[in-house]
Amino acid sequence: MSILVELAALEDGAEFARRHIGPGPDDITAMLQVVGAASLDEMAAHTVPASIRQADLSALPPPATEAEAIAELRALAERNQRLKSLIGLGYHGTHVPPVILRNVLENPGWYTAYTPYQAEIAQGRLEALVNFQTMVAELAGLPVANASLLDEGTAAAEAVALAHAAHKGKSNTLLVAADLHPQTLAVVRTRAEPVGITVQVVPPAGLVAAAAEKPFAVLLQYPGTTGEVRDLTPEIAAAHDAGALAIVAADPLSLCLLTPPGEMGADVVIGSTQRFGVPLGYGGPHAAYMAVKDALKRLLPGRLVGVSLDAAGNPAMRLALQTREQHIRREKATSNICTAQVLLAVMAGMYAVWHGPEGLARIARRVNLHARLLAEAARRGGFTLRHEAFFDTIAIEAGDRADALMQGAVKRGFNLWRVDAGCVSIALDETVTRDDLAALADLLGGGALDALTAKHSLPEPLARHSAYLTAEVFRSHHSEHAMLRYLKRLEDKDVALNRSMIPLGSCTMKLNATAEMIPITFPGFAEIHPFAPEDQAQGYFTMIKQLEDWLCAVTGFAAVSLQPNAGSQGEYAGLLAIRAWHRAQGNDQRDVCLIPSSAHGTNPASAVMAGMKVVVVGCDRDGNVDLKDLEAKAAQHAERLAALMVTYPSTHGVFEEAIKDICALVHRHGGQVYMDGANMNAQVGLTSPAAIGADVCHLNLHKTFCIPHGGGGPGVGPIGVAAHLAPHLPNHPFHSGAGPATGYGPVSAAPFGSAAILPISYAYIRMMGAEGLTRATQVAILSANYMARRLEQHYPVLYRGLRGMVAHECILDCRGFQQGGGVMVEDIAKRLQDYGYHAPTMSWPVSGTLMVEPTESEPKEELDRFCDAMIAIRAEIRAVEQGRSDRADNPLKNAPHTAAEVMATEWAHPYSREDAAFPLPFVRAHKYWPPVKRVDNVYGDRNLVCTCAPLEAYAQAMHLQAAE
Amino acid sequence: MSILVELAALEDGAEFARRHIGPGPDDITAMLQVVGAASLDEMAAHTVPASIRQADLSALPPPATEAEAIAELRALAERNQRLKSLIGLGYHGTHVPPVILRNVLENPGWYTAYTPYQAEIAQGRLEALVNFQTMVAELAGLPVANASLLDEGTAAAEAVALAHAAHKGKSNTLLVAADLHPQTLAVVRTRAEPVGITVQVVPPAGLVAAAAEKPFAVLLQYPGTTGEVRDLTPEIAAAHDAGALAIVAADPLSLCLLTPPGEMGADVVIGSTQRFGVPLGYGGPHAAYMAVKDALKRLLPGRLVGVSLDAAGNPAMRLALQTREQHIRREKATSNICTAQVLLAVMAGMYAVWHGPEGLARIARRVNLHARLLAEAARRGGFTLRHEAFFDTIAIEAGDRADALMQGAVKRGFNLWRVDAGCVSIALDETVTRDDLAALADLLGGGALDALTAKHSLPEPLARHSAYLTAEVFRSHHSEHAMLRYLKRLEDKDVALNRSMIPLGSCTMKLNATAEMIPITFPGFAEIHPFAPEDQAQGYFTMIKQLEDWLCAVTGFAAVSLQPNAGSQGEYAGLLAIRAWHRAQGNDQRDVCLIPSSAHGTNPASAVMAGMKVVVVGCDRDGNVDLKDLEAKAAQHAERLAALMVTYPSTHGVFEEAIKDICALVHRHGGQVYMDGANMNAQVGLTSPAAIGADVCHLNLHKTFCIPHGGGGPGVGPIGVAAHLAPHLPNHPFHSGAGPATGYGPVSAAPFGSAAILPISYAYIRMMGAEGLTRATQVAILSANYMARRLEQHYPVLYRGLRGMVAHECILDCRGFQQGGGVMVEDIAKRLQDYGYHAPTMSWPVSGTLMVEPTESEPKEELDRFCDAMIAIRAEIRAVEQGRSDRADNPLKNAPHTAAEVMATEWAHPYSREDAAFPLPFVRAHKYWPPVKRVDNVYGDRNLVCTCAPLEAYAQAMHLQAAE
Repeated sequence: MSILVELAALEDGAEFARRHIGPGPDDITAMLQVVGAASLDEMAAHTVPASIRQADLSALPPPATEAEAIAELRALAERNQRLKSLIGLGYHGTHVPPVILRNVLENPGWYTAYTPYQAEIAQGRLEALVNFQTMVAELAGLPVANASLLDEGTAAAEAVALAHAAHKGKSNTLLVAADLHPQTLAVVRTRAEPVGITVQVVPPAGLVAAAAEKPFAVLLQYPGTTGEVRDLTPEIAAAHDAGALAIVAADPLSLCLLTPPGEMGADVVIGSTQRFGVPLGYGGPHAAYMAVKDALKRLLPGRLVGVSLDAAGNPAMRLALQTREQHIRREKATSNICTAQVLLAVMAGMYAVWHGPEGLARIARRVNLHARLLAEAARRGGFTLRHEAFFDTIAIEAGDRADALMQGAVKRGFNLWRVDAGCVSIALDETVTRDDLAALADLLGGGALDALTAKHSLPEPLARHSAYLTAEVFRSHHSEHAMLRYLKRLEDKDVALNRSMIPLGSCTMKLNATAEMIPITFPGFAEIHPFAPEDQAQGYFTMIKQLEDWLCAVTGFAAVSLQPNAGSQGEYAGLLAIRAWHRAQGNDQRDVCLIPSSAHGTNPASAVMAGMKVVVVGCDRDGNVDLKDLEAKAAQHAERLAALMVTYPSTHGVFEEAIKDICALVHRHGGQVYMDGANMNAQVGLTSPAAIGADVCHLNLHKTFCIPHGGGGPGVGPIGVAAHLAPHLPNHPFHSGAGPATGYGPVSAAPFGSAAILPISYAYIRMMGAEGLTRATQVAILSANYMARRLEQHYPVLYRGLRGMVAHECILDCRGFQQGGGVMVEDIAKRLQDYGYHAPTMSWPVSGTLMVEPTESEPKEELDRFCDAMIAIRAEIRAVEQGRSDRADNPLKNAPHTAAEVMATEWAHPYSREDAAFPLPFVRAHKYWPPVKRVDNVYGDRNLVCTCAPLEAYAQAMHLQAAE
Repeated sequence: MSILVELAALEDGAEFARRHIGPGPDDITAMLQVVGAASLDEMAAHTVPASIRQADLSALPPPATEAEAIAELRALAERNQRLKSLIGLGYHGTHVPPVILRNVLENPGWYTAYTPYQAEIAQGRLEALVNFQTMVAELAGLPVANASLLDEGTAAAEAVALAHAAHKGKSNTLLVAADLHPQTLAVVRTRAEPVGITVQVVPPAGLVAAAAEKPFAVLLQYPGTTGEVRDLTPEIAAAHDAGALAIVAADPLSLCLLTPPGEMGADVVIGSTQRFGVPLGYGGPHAAYMAVKDALKRLLPGRLVGVSLDAAGNPAMRLALQTREQHIRREKATSNICTAQVLLAVMAGMYAVWHGPEGLARIARRVNLHARLLAEAARRGGFTLRHEAFFDTIAIEAGDRADALMQGAVKRGFNLWRVDAGCVSIALDETVTRDDLAALADLLGGGALDALTAKHSLPEPLARHSAYLTAEVFRSHHSEHAMLRYLKRLEDKDVALNRSMIPLGSCTMKLNATAEMIPITFPGFAEIHPFAPEDQAQGYFTMIKQLEDWLCAVTGFAAVSLQPNAGSQGEYAGLLAIRAWHRAQGNDQRDVCLIPSSAHGTNPASAVMAGMKVVVVGCDRDGNVDLKDLEAKAAQHAERLAALMVTYPSTHGVFEEAIKDICALVHRHGGQVYMDGANMNAQVGLTSPAAIGADVCHLNLHKTFCIPHGGGGPGVGPIGVAAHLAPHLPNHPFHSGAGPATGYGPVSAAPFGSAAILPISYAYIRMMGAEGLTRATQVAILSANYMARRLEQHYPVLYRGLRGMVAHECILDCRGFQQGGGVMVEDIAKRLQDYGYHAPTMSWPVSGTLMVEPTESEPKEELDRFCDAMIAIRAEIRAVEQGRSDRADNPLKNAPHTAAEVMATEWAHPYSREDAAFPLPFVRAHKYWPPVKRVDNVYGDRNLVCTCAPLEAYAQAMHLQAAE
């Protein structure tokens, strides 16, 4: 036995946890001393209320090494069968250009970046998103496009909500063309029902007539899901005549050859850009898109990037029209979308940059030619086609030969789509080779390829005549060297985790370890269609079920659904589960959702979308839920009480002592407790949603479980539920294993949401093991308390627990500086950029504060550097307060400083160039240079420009304007 | 048929060539106009002499797309069987830390960098190399280590040459311990014979006695190749007593636990650092090492990085003692080593940074414990061990059970090593798991693991007591975030191809396309032991044979050997082939090698190593070989003439018209023609070595065929030979397919040299096809001529062909500026750094000049930016010449300018800060900041420091020194 002990001692099984957790053992000892605890366990006992201190992670396997985890995931990937899926329905094979694969998707400079709220240090990805928006707008034929949505299904649902809001409720009927992708229809149905929208599905031929019945919108597919290309102008005109909006879901590749919906009059165009160089990945993540008419731009959900000016009058980009966002509009929001799919939108936009308009058109023409050849093969084989006008998809009336076609295809290595009993469709894509074509022609009985002819299949009147992608950027980077350097230049402009810590309260930015990222680009994970036959995706299914089990252990719940593909979607899915349960109990009237005033803005937005009425509960001075107010509101609404939404630890970064009482109180009044899992990283291994008494929670896998932010997405927001809610989870029409048969339908287009990135969280849990996960939580709490202690002499720390401890984050009060020296919290945030840091969360949940969340992954040296920067900034503030610095002309007000400015011949400031650029020695050693000065948000919103026009041209225009 | 034509038009089969070649069709038209040719073909006709304009690439397959090539290589990789190879002999399984894999080996910021000759823009990799040197020196127990060598076999041969030189030829006998790795012995034998060294192999027990016979050196292995650990002190002492040097080949992992050879008195320690996180890769590339006593440092082959000061007095690193290098010492050189294995040395050094001394020791102890357990299992199974003292390798006396052991191992997924008929060895490594161990114990009949005991196997007196890796850098980066940011910080300091062009004459820096790089980290290529059974490596073998065939087509030769793992090794291998052929003809006396004065410095060094006498042939005023002198020398030495070495196009960048006459003349006098293939990229598809009449040439795959420079290695230098020389290629004792049975033995330790990176060149040729390769050559020539035309009004262009054309590079004469304004060519080179550029090749082949080679991969915009920079610099020179700028204090003399300097409060120069840092608008748009000012080479060589001491400590010391 002793030999095995000796072996174990040398095996370093916990190596990964040691690498993931930043502070080493000596660091932890030193930090504990500062915090005043003898051990991590003691510190945890001082922080987490005793009443909830229970967690059981014994179901997790012992930790695997990096090599073992990668090997395990490789084996799982290899269990997926990589047939060529010609299933279509918005998901197509694509070639990820290797230069983009390696330098974006596999590059921490891109994938570890945060959402570009701090515009000055995010100019690279903002430019990439403007490329994406330009591409979408020009392909769709509409002036404004957002910076991506979660998937085509939810994009359609968002468009419906937008139309419903624009229509101001004069009608609740949505008209849907019967040739909409079926999963889109399913998502729209899920989303429509709770808000009282009736979905009326009508065959294409009946749409014009049906429009007369005054729906608020019509939702069309272009080309139709079985491939038909037809002129949508009559339907759109009929909708407009009836006062309805016209929404078109469109395939972007087809728009290279076809009249865009915008030119047919569509008000909103949505779709997926997956086939623009983003792997299938069993359904996601991909960037969906939405483009709208100018009049609708303020209703646009999601993120919108616009060009503005910086303080020096130079062009600079930033998120535009942010007042639209749900985190500000709360229950008045028409959407709860928070995360976008930035990383994937960057990839899709770069695919367009790489191919340019001619390249895209060539791909489109080739795909179309392939479809035409197979159409001819089908005819020769004695089949008839359902449609003679098509782009890339042919629908074959196969009658009783349909089974044989499907099986023959699989034998030859292809998945086709069974439209209905007698009809089989084939969707072509850019990966189809001549050999594939020959095999398919043979399958169809069409004979040899070179004997075939190819009739035109695109109606001449629908040929596209308008230009697209005319900006310089889509013509300049067609050689790999040019592309490589363009990507590098953009990346270099930004701050991501590979440079320095990003201590964002509430939005954990922890390590995204390489071993977690490597498996996601394994072909066995990347090249699987979401609707491939279930037996072909057993590797995925095994991995998913395993991950669900582990998340059950972590949350203490009975079931988990991985379908929601963002935290906001998880909130929504969880509330729908509560709603469905109440209804199953016959309590249809339960529709009141209590939400503390400190909640994330998505909470009320999600509640409204789930058909609930929001009642706000106050907070006390310590930032905790006001128990009296809660009791009063719960009692007042007892008959209709559906749920309480509560974040734990609180959004103020505190483990509220009363949490169990709060949950019990809600249950007493017949309500369910929804726990917002944003701060789950402070619970793992120490307590759990089940332990506090919650019934359902969502988990932000991109926070607690290491999925990278990607510059603003992807996100993954699974939900866990107690046993009684398990029958009320989402499910999916195309996968029997994606949820209970009793579920309420899908909330995402794909059965398992963003399946392709689930290996990241799988790998993380697999390598950390129970002990590692628990230690991570403890060190996250330790780090927050360590920083609070180091900074409290300089910045008042708001809100603490009973024993003076914060949880995993702390709020620094900056409100006092305004009076003394006129220094605003924004000045501190921008000044941090001169020190090379991304600011903590600003003015949330309390205006005028900074919320700092260090995470367990940051080495103590980095925590100390950040504290040093904050302390140095405090000294700069004091200089202003004491009149030693000018109130208006000081390093804080002028921050950030660009290289161009600091080394200009003219330097008119009362402080030195060194003070501006190198305020501390460590800054000099690894200086980051913000590429622009402070961005003017107001100017940009007044002069909205969301597409490129190359920046230089725009700069010129603005200089002219400024000169006028 | 027309449908196939339509298909082909849309298939974009030549897409890769279009992406690889920088200038697009419109650019090429514009450039042709400047050059004065109507088409690429016409331009080629103006450049390449008609007499040699013939090439036949019809044997190449049509171009594959990126996806096809990657799929093809993936299939080849999967044909290799990934058994766990416990073969040892200097090659061991290892875990590449994922953070290093992705951020170094798969990161263009590291792999596309050039050799750090321009130290100011290479501080990142220079620091990484100092880490490597420190690691080697401290593990070996010697004060000085170089920045890597090609492999353990050649490192041993280099050590022998060093010792021979140090000994000044008083003896020609080398004593070799019989337990040296057999492939090392084979390489040493190949290298010894031509220079008259006798290799005497002696069993360990006889070494002390044999040393008395006055060899010039003894060469020992530690631990021995069959695993034995013994005290080498007696042998080393005996060698020293006899006036000989003691060379020890040592396993670096064992040195974590064992007394290092340096402490036993060894003069030179060599070995391989492969097992420090560098994939097996079927034999290479890996970084070998050499450490020496202080007295031998000026004889050290390869590169040595040292710390010096920059012009501001701050510490800065650069290549030290460069006067040692063969390119300067020519025929007086004792080595021809040029390329190192920088990328792999960086990886190995970072592996030590990642694990630190405790981590390495833990790995070493675990490997040792595994070996001890298996030793016990073997004893229980009734076997005896050859040695009772061992580190990681046990040698089992298996008698007639040896066959069964070998076969049983393969069945269980392991490769063992058959030492001899009755002996089988097992070498443990860090990838061996407990399950592996149990399977092996079972194989040996040792029973269950937990029943085993483990006797100590390391002799107590040999336990290591001295500390190692004590510098801060080996203790600071043990969390992944710390490591990730350290790698990023170093990368950011450097200029590589992902920032800007590196227009190095003679050292092409063309695109290393991502699609070429992706396959090299496929496990099927990465995890194969070079001595794995041949039937397990069929994927490699197929790929290698195919690549050989393609290179035959390109060169016009009959056979190719891929074994030489650098250009210098190719030169050597080619000359050995010539030598062997002469001997086979009975012409042993033919030993004179004619070399033009313009040749690469490696040429004469290689000739001397091949046992030849160098006779220099002059050049005429046009830079061509002086035909008269050649004729005279050839006639004079006709009896002894062995070879002419000639570079084509010439090192002056010109297609010499007389090349066929030159070759014929040499043949007439009985000599062979060796063509230096450095400029092969100007020939491919237009002419060939065979067409000019050469008999043998080497190819720098890292130049012409896209293997990246890696910051100074790996290189690959295959040779092609005409049919009569094919029987005289290198071969290898461990692979029957690695060369002809009639060959002269191995020149590299592994049968196929740097096999792991051959997929890069395979992919390049596969994706370019004949047409693409030819077009690449044409555009490379066009780009050089375009730049020559744009720059000739500003800088005299030296040497042109008959019709005024240069070949693929051009020489800009800067000698005239010295007189007028005192501006040296070095000032121009350093000033280019302020513009963001790596300088062209400086002062070679003509002192005071810059040789510019743009390659085909650079977009026209980039060529123009570089020309703009050169023209702007010419204007700066003119300002000095005309007295408008100060002769001593001007942007050229002070270049490069750091950010710290340009934004210091004090600015005492007569030119502006903007002139210093932003001399052209494009520089402002993407500024690169050199991290240090001009490096003082002389200071560093006078105060040699080649290990870290953290830089800060060193800085302090130097400041103290400066203050004294």
